[in-house]
Amino acid sequence: MYTQEFAPEVELRKSKVVAALNAMNTDAILIGTNVNNYYMAGRVFSGYVYINREGYLHYYVKRPALLKGDNITYIRKPEDIPALLQEAGVATPTTIGLEMDFMSYSDIARLAKLFPDATATNGSGIMRYVRATKTAYEIEKTRISAQGHMSVYKSLQGIYHPGMTDIELQIEIEARLRRAGCLGIFRVAGPSMEVFMGSLISGDNADNPSPYDFAMGGAGLDSSLPGGCNGTVIEPGMSTMVDLCGNFTGYMTDISRTYSVGKLSDLAYRAHNCSVAIHHAIKDMARPGVKAADIYNLSRSMAEEAGLSEYFMGHNQQAGFMGHGVGIEINEAPVLAPRSRDVLEAGNIIAVEPKFVIPGTGAVGIENTYLITAEGCENLTDFCEDVMPLD
Amino acid sequence: MYTQEFAPEVELRKSKVVAALNAMNTDAILIGTNVNNYYMAGRVFSGYVYINREGYLHYYVKRPALLKGDNITYIRKPEDIPALLQEAGVATPTTIGLEMDFMSYSDIARLAKLFPDATATNGSGIMRYVRATKTAYEIEKTRISAQGHMSVYKSLQGIYHPGMTDIELQIEIEARLRRAGCLGIFRVAGPSMEVFMGSLISGDNADNPSPYDFAMGGAGLDSSLPGGCNGTVIEPGMSTMVDLCGNFTGYMTDISRTYSVGKLSDLAYRAHNCSVAIHHAIKDMARPGVKAADIYNLSRSMAEEAGLSEYFMGHNQQAGFMGHGVGIEINEAPVLAPRSRDVLEAGNIIAVEPKFVIPGTGAVGIENTYLITAEGCENLTDFCEDVMPLD
Repeated sequence: MYTQEFAPEVELRKSKVVAALNAMNTDAILIGTNVNNYYMAGRVFSGYVYINREGYLHYYVKRPALLKGDNITYIRKPEDIPALLQEAGVATPTTIGLEMDFMSYSDIARLAKLFPDATATNGSGIMRYVRATKTAYEIEKTRISAQGHMSVYKSLQGIYHPGMTDIELQIEIEARLRRAGCLGIFRVAGPSMEVFMGSLISGDNADNPSPYDFAMGGAGLDSSLPGGCNGTVIEPGMSTMVDLCGNFTGYMTDISRTYSVGKLSDLAYRAHNCSVAIHHAIKDMARPGVKAADIYNLSRSMAEEAGLSEYFMGHNQQAGFMGHGVGIEINEAPVLAPRSRDVLEAGNIIAVEPKFVIPGTGAVGIENTYLITAEGCENLTDFCEDVMPLD
Repeated sequence: MYTQEFAPEVELRKSKVVAALNAMNTDAILIGTNVNNYYMAGRVFSGYVYINREGYLHYYVKRPALLKGDNITYIRKPEDIPALLQEAGVATPTTIGLEMDFMSYSDIARLAKLFPDATATNGSGIMRYVRATKTAYEIEKTRISAQGHMSVYKSLQGIYHPGMTDIELQIEIEARLRRAGCLGIFRVAGPSMEVFMGSLISGDNADNPSPYDFAMGGAGLDSSLPGGCNGTVIEPGMSTMVDLCGNFTGYMTDISRTYSVGKLSDLAYRAHNCSVAIHHAIKDMARPGVKAADIYNLSRSMAEEAGLSEYFMGHNQQAGFMGHGVGIEINEAPVLAPRSRDVLEAGNIIAVEPKFVIPGTGAVGIENTYLITAEGCENLTDFCEDVMPLD
């Protein structure tokens, strides 16, 4: 299943899950989504992982063929699992966590029947909580994504030609990201969320509301994917917000930068500088024990004090959050939102994106990905924060 | 919500859903997944569509802001819906269909509580069945995708340079598809399915099994996405199977072609020609009333008669199907598999992909997208079926 080198990482992640099972008074968890299988095995496979409070961990694999390991059993269907657990002498659970927020009703109903004497509980929060604090291995994977991601964002001067549309620009940046090693896939949790390779919005397209719960909108090119680029011709005086996929390792970074051709309006620069000032204030403030809601509130107050409330996090439609955890998925815990009950912990990796939509100009501001350490906050995406030229 | 021009299409799709509700003896359906919302509204939105047997259809919208229409009500949460139905004088359902195969357990449990006196049933099959026969409007959208998709596949001669890797080739084709108007997003149903922009496999990478239930495998570039390209350097004598995304309109076509640098082995050409012969036999056979399983069985027998069974649909790991419906998602009904109970109907659009994996050469064969008409079968992706040169 995984290399010898990865074995200690499996033990570490298992110990985090076991601690969470104990905290939630849950005997065992049976997971089966790609993201959580990947988290527990270091590779995506089709099948299930069983972990109990005693520290028993086993992989039940449907596909791919040919995986090897002491803790792997091939199965044809999940109904094969209970007998295998019994054969292995594993105690029958009285409570079993299942990923009820992420697996379909039909799949959960089927899995719950495997343990007829157990109470099935929602184990989604256990995995969400465990994944919110990254291990040293995961942090290193994230640093690699940050390097690739930043290298492309730094290379965009001169990419512009007169008459260029937002989608032409996006396709060129997508190709550069892919050539730099970006895996392309942009994992996002939640049934109403979908995206191709991220968002690029130029000018007043930033004010077109979208159905997706991302920070920014955009009309999209087609009603089947109504977000991001809409074919806007990029003109001098227009901002272009680039917020494209930074998935180079399975662990994403999330970076936005504002680009322009020529000068923007004074209001736009003022809002951009407010975004940068919010970042610096958050970098000073964020550390273990700080409430995620307080970070949101600080940002909102700074926007208010600057007289920019009506543009903060959108204009026609405003996002209800200003940042989020990031890792295997783009929207992990903690959530930086007014009613978030999350508290920062060492190992959190958070994307912070105080942005403004200025009618007549477009979206401005920046987004960085920060690591919360025991001492404070490290910017994993530390490079130019100014509005950068495309021409 | 939609243009005046699209209104008759909504009526037509609604009438198909109403017929299915009657056939399934279900009073109403409440849908809420992006794909089915898109199907019923012609655009993706966040919210729900309610349709009952009397033909009442209403959209309950959370996002985006600013949509307009007589049949739209903005809601904050699904719990707002029952009172709105009552105000509209809509009869309380005694059975309510919900998308239990596609929405999370938590979401379904929440929606079922909206109708405490109704029996909640699995409405996934209703939408799957309705979407399997395409309307004229949907067929036209698919034809547009076919044109864009084919134009790129036809343009690949000369793309190769010595030392080129599979991923370098894939990135170049991705960019060409995007420039031709491909929306990039590749919608696939099922919790264990994910893909970036499709699959390209060169040489013996075709024999690396993957966790995903696609026809072909590939090791992938990273354990977080173990399918497709693995960095193989493309050499003379190696086949390259291109199976990349054809989503230009929200309705996909699915096309595979085999490319090579120089000559392949005799066995590889024999298998490729068998794939083409299977296609021609299927095109003659496929029409309304034909069983999907019979098409699979014909293909399998032709492979057997040619002495190619051990290579059919994979070698180390064989796929259990040989074709599938395609539309908004890449894996719709009907399914061409040995135990499929689907029967072809006029309006089905099916991707047929009899492929072979030849050790030492790679994957060969072709995939076309066919429309089932009252009279028979039309190839929507009719162009060169030979092994095509990359150099």
